[in-house]
Amino acid sequence: MKRTDRRSDCPINFALQTFGDSWSLLIIRDLMFGGARTYREFEAGPEGISTSVLADRLRTLTDNGIIRREGRGRSTRYSLTQAGLDLLPLLLEMMLWSAEHDSEIPELKGFMKRIQADRAGVQAEIEARVRETHGL
Amino acid sequence: MKRTDRRSDCPINFALQTFGDSWSLLIIRDLMFGGARTYREFEAGPEGISTSVLADRLRTLTDNGIIRREGRGRSTRYSLTQAGLDLLPLLLEMMLWSAEHDSEIPELKGFMKRIQADRAGVQAEIEARVRETHGL
Repeated sequence: MKRTDRRSDCPINFALQTFGDSWSLLIIRDLMFGGARTYREFEAGPEGISTSVLADRLRTLTDNGIIRREGRGRSTRYSLTQAGLDLLPLLLEMMLWSAEHDSEIPELKGFMKRIQADRAGVQAEIEARVRETHGL
Repeated sequence: MKRTDRRSDCPINFALQTFGDSWSLLIIRDLMFGGARTYREFEAGPEGISTSVLADRLRTLTDNGIIRREGRGRSTRYSLTQAGLDLLPLLLEMMLWSAEHDSEIPELKGFMKRIQADRAGVQAEIEARVRETHGL
């Protein structure tokens, strides 16, 4: 993966420039955990992404090699690439951080407890599902 | 930690709303790994953050409980809070992802190899240093 517009040689900056804006990560979340694959399904997400932001981020993520686009028009579907799937540990870290610091969402603790108790198992399970459904 | 403006109850969204914009994470990086503590030191970072963005993100991160501000005027210093320090595993994941997928930065592989070989050790070392220097 190459960038001609890199702001610095820092690996954290590279990650942020490649997938690290808030809406991009929510799209990756929907592909990874939510089973969303189409424009309409991303649009239906709970955060209410706007059409123009969604179109822009899908294009950028495709250009950056994080997701793959297949089909045309109404049958267009998106999949995670291997580089996209490799973001799973990062998303799990993000969830665990929130489970620890978000004081208002007690009902999420169930899934969090599963991650805390058997993180490798949960990760392998999600990875296997994505590999199968996204053709990796 | 509470948010009145949450876009959804998703823990990934919570994380993104709390620290998850690109410039915020670069400030957290500089506090965690770079030893930066003052406005001038953040401003000197390699990505060339603008004064107005820096001021805005320092305020937001302070309001969100990720960093702490001490002193006034020229002697103002910033520290990570416990919630900020808890982002270390996430930053390490981000670096490992880039080490895997950034094809242009071979000279970073040394530190990455250390993380890959002894992640718990590297994490403990950085955590101890931050705890000491940031008064946690």
